[in-house]
Amino acid sequence: MVEYDLKSLLEKLREKRPLVHNITNYVVMNFTANTLLAMGASPVMAHAVDEVEEMVSLASAMVINIGTLSKHWIESMVRAGKKANALGVPVILDPVGSGATSFRTNTFRKLVRELKLTVVRGNASEILSIASVSIKTKGVDTAHGTEQALETAKEVAREIDAVVAITGPVDLITDGNKVVRCHNGHSLLGSVTGTGCAATTAIAAFAGLAVDPLEATSAGLAFFGLAGELAGVKASSPGSFMVSLLDALYEITPDEFQANSRLEQG
Amino acid sequence: MVEYDLKSLLEKLREKRPLVHNITNYVVMNFTANTLLAMGASPVMAHAVDEVEEMVSLASAMVINIGTLSKHWIESMVRAGKKANALGVPVILDPVGSGATSFRTNTFRKLVRELKLTVVRGNASEILSIASVSIKTKGVDTAHGTEQALETAKEVAREIDAVVAITGPVDLITDGNKVVRCHNGHSLLGSVTGTGCAATTAIAAFAGLAVDPLEATSAGLAFFGLAGELAGVKASSPGSFMVSLLDALYEITPDEFQANSRLEQG
Amino acid sequence: MVEYDLKSLLEKLREKRPLVHNITNYVVMNFTANTLLAMGASPVMAHAVDEVEEMVSLASAMVINIGTLSKHWIESMVRAGKKANALGVPVILDPVGSGATSFRTNTFRKLVRELKLTVVRGNASEILSIASVSIKTKGVDTAHGTEQALETAKEVAREIDAVVAITGPVDLITDGNKVVRCHNGHSLLGSVTGTGCAATTAIAAFAGLAVDPLEATSAGLAFFGLAGELAGVKASSPGSFMVSLLDALYEITPDEFQANSRLEQG
Repeated sequence: MVEYDLKSLLEKLREKRPLVHNITNYVVMNFTANTLLAMGASPVMAHAVDEVEEMVSLASAMVINIGTLSKHWIESMVRAGKKANALGVPVILDPVGSGATSFRTNTFRKLVRELKLTVVRGNASEILSIASVSIKTKGVDTAHGTEQALETAKEVAREIDAVVAITGPVDLITDGNKVVRCHNGHSLLGSVTGTGCAATTAIAAFAGLAVDPLEATSAGLAFFGLAGELAGVKASSPGSFMVSLLDALYEITPDEFQANSRLEQG
Repeated sequence: MVEYDLKSLLEKLREKRPLVHNITNYVVMNFTANTLLAMGASPVMAHAVDEVEEMVSLASAMVINIGTLSKHWIESMVRAGKKANALGVPVILDPVGSGATSFRTNTFRKLVRELKLTVVRGNASEILSIASVSIKTKGVDTAHGTEQALETAKEVAREIDAVVAITGPVDLITDGNKVVRCHNGHSLLGSVTGTGCAATTAIAAFAGLAVDPLEATSAGLAFFGLAGELAGVKASSPGSFMVSLLDALYEITPDEFQANSRLEQG
Repeated sequence: MVEYDLKSLLEKLREKRPLVHNITNYVVMNFTANTLLAMGASPVMAHAVDEVEEMVSLASAMVINIGTLSKHWIESMVRAGKKANALGVPVILDPVGSGATSFRTNTFRKLVRELKLTVVRGNASEILSIASVSIKTKGVDTAHGTEQALETAKEVAREIDAVVAITGPVDLITDGNKVVRCHNGHSLLGSVTGTGCAATTAIAAFAGLAVDPLEATSAGLAFFGLAGELAGVKASSPGSFMVSLLDALYEITPDEFQANSRLEQG
């Protein structure tokens, strides 16, 4: 197990209530805002090119999420991200659907090129879509989210100098060198839309406390996955599971977080 | 009662998990994505002109929904629909608000003109808004969703060569020749936003199994209506009803679907 | 206590089911539509410049909400608002985020300048952002939503000739002359996104009954706050609270509304 002081981290989150600026997709805006509020952070959603730089200046972390993307949002993402970079605000990217269309893949690449990202979280195929040809042709079986994806994640992390998280039955988190596996989670998370995007914003909430990105990512995924586990005790279908998930994000105490996180190093 | 093999159809849905590409309105994006996931299908929401053709190529069915419409979305709807037509992907249209403003009515007409639609689902006034003047001037009382609307629905179905469904206390489904009435449903569905749009996407999920459009439409409306009935057993107010509805979409077994669908032919 | 006939007002709301046209932000569209439906009103969301004037002509009240603002929506807000003004449809403004960025503040000012607003509802810092320099430099401590904010609210209400509501632990409602305090509410409302926006749309529902704006605003905030209190009896965490809140909006009877509203004049 990893020796993070998760208890203190959650105490700090609820005391500081970091503001997370989200440029995110329409489908999940409500759910991710509620995720941040429930866990103890503060959400703001703003995407207009006229205000994103000013908004991100108020924030402790920012999320860029490319679901329901349209062209004029990309400029806002780049501007906000550059301002965040200039101010030292961590930028957490969720490359939703990268690999499915060239528009998404090219946008992922553009954002990687133009911004200094702190964390990138996606499923295996999304992360693989950014990998260079040389990495891809090793024939990594990312479709099944297996351990084989780990080597790709590490190479991508080194290439883009960011923490990379591939979420699946077991989440793989790496800075290109160190590796953390997160075993928290629940199968019903896959039956509710936006849980991946919400996990990304949970990472951003912890990153907003100015901790090491590998620790923030591990904490965010363990916290969100633990909430899923607790929801799964109360609910066995997706409607009530979603409700219990928001409840759990609110109810988990710092001691419970420390005791029940299942993060494994190496 | 209609002799559809609904049991096999639901088994097939949950095995194949058809991808449904939605160009839909902001209000219901989250709820329709959760509807698809809960019932066992896979949702994707994408509207950018830069990617809709590529996205629909991955899909088994597509939904076009004109709620919260703006002008630049129409080009995406047409492009995606034409690509779907070319590929044989069924296109399910929900003409939200047609008849309320000329912008919506004209868009409905444009989509009918430019695309080969598989199914159109709306309430009586939405469907009537597309009817030719000659049909309308018969003075059909569609405002109350009565059986009088049936003749209009049949004429519209023949005019546009698609299955037309007018939903209300009893849903009327017709290909212009055959008629199916669906008696499943619950009054609280009218107190939750997006249930009509979600019913449309449920139709698309079944249409994604490449069955006859009349059967897919009947199955989608019976399935969604049955989920409403089951939710109505557990909940008597709209907040908890909405939660129980998503639960029911997940919980209905193929045998229950077969046993409790109330579809009537003729 | 104020001597409003809230019982009759709620009876009238549920009988007339006033249509409220919302130009609102992406985050809350679903929740505010569900709020209106649950309480007994009818929602429509439409923002396209091509249809807002036609849509507002069908409505009994309109909400303009500047969250997730982008530039091309402002023209729609102005056009819809001017049409509403011409028709005597009350316009309820929610200046979300005004004061946080100059884009939002300038938009709030533009809307105040170009439209005749009926009610403006915001938190203290949002309302203060519109105050003239002379008001602001009195050093009012609006950040804490205290009674000190009342003088600002009154001056703003006189300046813009509208009812101004500053919501917080106690809501302050004023037309610049008379003052009503609303004591209904619950702390968990702050842990669910969109509850402020939903309170605004509850005001619009009552304003759609063509009652005095001070009364409509008081009724809307008391009703929404009471629903929060009832939800707080059933739920102690934000996910289940949100569900119970929608249930309560549906369940409150006219007698209960009359008996449990805590509005105080003076």
